[in-house]
Amino acid sequence: MPDTIMSKEPTSNLESAMQMLIKTFHKYSGKEGDKYTLSRGELKELLIEELGSYLGNSKDNEAVEKVMNDLDSNNDGEVDFTEFIILMGALTVACNDFFLEYKTDEKPQEQPKE
Amino acid sequence: MPDTIMSKEPTSNLESAMQMLIKTFHKYSGKEGDKYTLSRGELKELLIEELGSYLGNSKDNEAVEKVMNDLDSNNDGEVDFTEFIILMGALTVACNDFFLEYKTDEKPQEQPKE
Repeated sequence: MPDTIMSKEPTSNLESAMQMLIKTFHKYSGKEGDKYTLSRGELKELLIEELGSYLGNSKDNEAVEKVMNDLDSNNDGEVDFTEFIILMGALTVACNDFFLEYKTDEKPQEQPKE
Repeated sequence: MPDTIMSKEPTSNLESAMQMLIKTFHKYSGKEGDKYTLSRGELKELLIEELGSYLGNSKDNEAVEKVMNDLDSNNDGEVDFTEFIILMGALTVACNDFFLEYKTDEKPQEQPKE
């Protein structure tokens, strides 16, 4: 049997990141209904359990509804893998911007006068 | 000092994946020239060291040039973080498709006749 991408041990951080994204999506998408898409309930569970500390108040239904409506570009009430990756990409870019802004805000320490 | 997203320990696989993407990009982007973008040389190093086993023949210059030209949407010869995330997203979606196709191809085992 040939090695599949998913059964092979990741050899770098980027490969690990890709595997984690795929495995996490399927952990939730497989719970009910279509095995390959996230229903509202599955998306809510994923957001709370996996991104709770990033999304902060995503625990209220309104936030979950907003994310769902933004992601579900074809309006079928389900989020597919591509839509999920678009969310994760946007979140990662936002985190990176925040990180860079924070670094830029760090003022260099003034040299004490002699 | 407030905790930043990057200094905080990730509490889930998705948070780890996001941190890995950000850290890997900056590991290479900081080597020469603009600290926040990948030059051709930095992109080539990243592709070979981090994605060598996925991209296969990315070691030849032609493949690196092709990825660079596809990614560098504003033609400045540099790949910024957003362009990098678009590549990673596309690669992850391709891996997922491959994974699902492979699973669909697996024929269910026939029950032995009694």
